[in-house]
Parts: sequence; C-alpha cells; structure tokens
Amino acid sequence: MSNQTTDVRPLILVTNDDGYFAPGIRKLIAIMRKIGKVIVVAGEQPMSGMGHAITIKMPLRIKTVTKTDEYEEYICNGTPVDCVKLGEQIILNGKPDLLVSGINHGSNASINVIYSGTMAAVIEACIDQIPAIGFSLDDYSYDANFDHTEQVIEAITRKVLEEGLPEGVCLNVNIPAYTAEPFKGVRICRQARARWVEGFDSRHDPRGSAYHWMTGRFENLDNGEDTDHWALEQNYVSVVPVHFDLTAYNALETIKAWEF
Amino acid sequence: MSNQTTDVRPLILVTNDDGYFAPGIRKLIAIMRKIGKVIVVAGEQPMSGMGHAITIKMPLRIKTVTKTDEYEEYICNGTPVDCVKLGEQIILNGKPDLLVSGINHGSNASINVIYSGTMAAVIEACIDQIPAIGFSLDDYSYDANFDHTEQVIEAITRKVLEEGLPEGVCLNVNIPAYTAEPFKGVRICRQARARWVEGFDSRHDPRGSAYHWMTGRFENLDNGEDTDHWALEQNYVSVVPVHFDLTAYNALETIKAWEF
Repeated sequence: MSNQTTDVRPLILVTNDDGYFAPGIRKLIAIMRKIGKVIVVAGEQPMSGMGHAITIKMPLRIKTVTKTDEYEEYICNGTPVDCVKLGEQIILNGKPDLLVSGINHGSNASINVIYSGTMAAVIEACIDQIPAIGFSLDDYSYDANFDHTEQVIEAITRKVLEEGLPEGVCLNVNIPAYTAEPFKGVRICRQARARWVEGFDSRHDPRGSAYHWMTGRFENLDNGEDTDHWALEQNYVSVVPVHFDLTAYNALETIKAWEF
Repeated sequence: MSNQTTDVRPLILVTNDDGYFAPGIRKLIAIMRKIGKVIVVAGEQPMSGMGHAITIKMPLRIKTVTKTDEYEEYICNGTPVDCVKLGEQIILNGKPDLLVSGINHGSNASINVIYSGTMAAVIEACIDQIPAIGFSLDDYSYDANFDHTEQVIEAITRKVLEEGLPEGVCLNVNIPAYTAEPFKGVRICRQARARWVEGFDSRHDPRGSAYHWMTGRFENLDNGEDTDHWALEQNYVSVVPVHFDLTAYNALETIKAWEF
C-alpha cells in the first residue's frame, strides 16, 4: 500500500489531460516531488476537451511505469476523471492528501473550465472531499516554457496543504505565458463570462463525403476587472475557487413564481 | 435553411445522450412536435457519462435521416455537446428558439448533472444564449414507461417559451419513475449534495491481464428538503435552475486572505 502511516510527507496524486508524456505534467511532477510523495495516474493519450467524461462502455486498464518507495507512475486508457477514480480506488485504495492536475498546455480560465479534462479531474477529487488544484499555462504550444510557473505552483500548493480548502471548493489556477517580464502577482478571481464562437472547418473526403473539424474563436463577454480572463490579460496569475453546485440560486425565486 | 421567417411556430432543437434510437428521445420528439418545428441532432451511439466532452481529435460526420418541411432528423458521430454545436453551425446556421435534451433514461438530479451528457448539451446551448431544458426520468431501464412525463414536459416547455429564462440560466428537470400513483406536482429545487462511491469490478482477461469496469453506488449527503433528490424521493418533479459559473463566491474572501 502506498499511503504508509510512517511517511509524514503528504501523499500527492498527480494527473492531467494532455497525456503522461506532456512537458506540463513532467514539470508538475518535478515540483510536487519537492513537496511530498508523488503518485502519478495519467492518460496514455491526450484527453483535452473531455470535460467530466467517465468511461463506462469500455473496461479500464492500468500500466505501471515506475514503482519505488519514493515515486510511483501509472498510465491508463481512461479520461482524467477516470484517472482520479482509479488512483483512489485501485492504486491507493484510499485518499491522497492532495490532487493536482496539469500543468495544462493552454488556459482553463473563464468558460474553458467547462470543457477542461484537467479541471474535471480536480472537481472529481473535490466531490470526493480531497483538496485539489488545477494548474494551467496560458500557452497551448507543446514546447511552452514552464520555468516561470515553478515558484508560484509550489507556493500555492504548500498554502493549500497548510490551510486546507473550504468544503466543496477546489482551485482553478491559470498562469500567464512566459514573457521577458515576470508576472505581476496572484489575483483571486471569479470566472469570466465568455464563450467559444464555433466554426467548423468543413471538408470532403476522397469519396466525396462531408466531414467537419471543430474550430473556434474565444469571445470574452465580461468587462469586469475581477475576472480570471482580466487577470491573465494583465499578466497576473489567476486563482478561482470552484465548486460543483450548478444551482443558479439567484434564479430560484423567478422560477418559483411560475405556475404549472 | 430550416428557420424560415414565415414559420411562426418555434424552432426546437432536440438532442440527448442515449442515442437517436432511444425511447426517451422518441417520446420527447413526439411532445415537441405538438409545440413547434422540430430539428433533431442526436448521436449514432449512446454517450452517457460523456459530461461536457467535445470532439477535437476526430472529424465529425452528419447523416440525414429525415428532411421535410415539418420535421428534420440528423445523426452524427459526436457527443451531445457536439450535437448542439453542429445543430447551430452546420444544420441551422443560426439559433433555434429552444433546445431540449432527453428524455434521459436515468436521473440527472444532484451530482449526476456533472457527468451528464444530456445536461451538458443543455449547458452548451445556455452558454450560447439559447433557452434550454434537460428532461430526465428517474428510471434507467431501456423500456421505461414515459407516458406520465408528457403533460408536465409540455407544460414546462410552453412556460419557458412564454416567459423566457433569466440570462445564463437553463433548467434541469427530473421526473419520478412511473408508478400507479401520479407524481404530486412540480418543485423548484437546488442541486442536492451527493456523490458516487466508486467501486471497480476488477477482472482478468484470458491472457491474464487485469481490467476494471467502473461501477458505483449513489450516496446522498444532503438532508435538505429543498433539493432535487428530496423532491424525487417524495414523488415530485424537480426543476433546478442551472448556470455555468463555477465560481465558489462564498470562498472568495477566505482565499483572498491568503498571502503568497
């Protein structure tokens, strides 16, 4: 069993949605190994845009990549949410002290949180009452520079381990892309109102059948200076406390006034 | 183009996550055809548990099943969220007056809303400022009785078309399973706090390799009498106003007090 009671270092479960080989998770693993005992459970394949998908039509398989007293790494054929469930139920047979997900190649600020596999893993852990943080870099490129993320990720992680998080709350942390100028600091934000204006790139295959590649253009609909989108644009790290209660409380009275 | 300005009946886009052939969507189509012009865009395959997944690694294809002045039906190889995007961008080239999703075979009350493809389609439409309602029956069986759902679905749909919905709000409607006793009425609720306690059913294939089927047991963690879970248990239809702002506003001050 991985979670030995004699080990006083925190047990940290690490996952992502870009696949186990992505530079972002490699950086996150390196940072977490300074803080605690790390168990990685990540997808064999990239799973961007998987949202909160779970795998129920297909059995899940786990491969052990590394297993030492210091460090364990597993890969599986599931989604990011599956990774959390397998990590808890099959690999740890218990709860880690912390779940971190990322570092995502690309922003999960504003409406992206809804589509994000990275944040779905975080929310899944939060549902299971595990402190959880998602880290994303506002740079989609595979060979993005992650060096400037190290200090702030370590600081936020240590803070969460020290203070805990309110019940039912996890964190969505987004870090500006690397520039010559260091980011200005950390802002606690709300999720910006935004959407993706979809287009499809429609083509025909050699047999003449139409097919459609999803594309899209991000559209910010929120002028607030307290949003994650604003913070990133101003070169701040954004931290949004996230919960999984989707009730629109301020609409309850309106709907209650309806008669059926 | 489907949305002719001379047609005064509302244009209703219908989707689901159980596949185009499921009895639940067949019932929903029949109800909606009494109210407006119906365009169906549904998956070829069941997509339960897909959450807010979108398809970005594979091109999407659409097949036309029916296309008349009165009614159009299309199937595609995508997720429920893809169906909404394809419906708007490729098929309608514009917005419908309403999006309805379901009738789901199984409850999407409480934490199920997070995993639900049915509700993801509704939330996607809501992000795009289309009034949207998800309908689910608290009965997972394929040959569930949907007859008792007809009147309440029609009433709620007509109400939404008449009154509209507050900006950024959609509805999650759950209907008790059929029993001899009719349901007691409609309750406007909040999402119950609950979770799935996962197990995996672990087996070995004929070559000796382990594989894991996801299973789970629903655990209600909420004793409130204002929740969707409570309403269903008491034989009421539950209606939860849902939004896509995941910010945990009541945690903002706590996190702001942290120093980095």
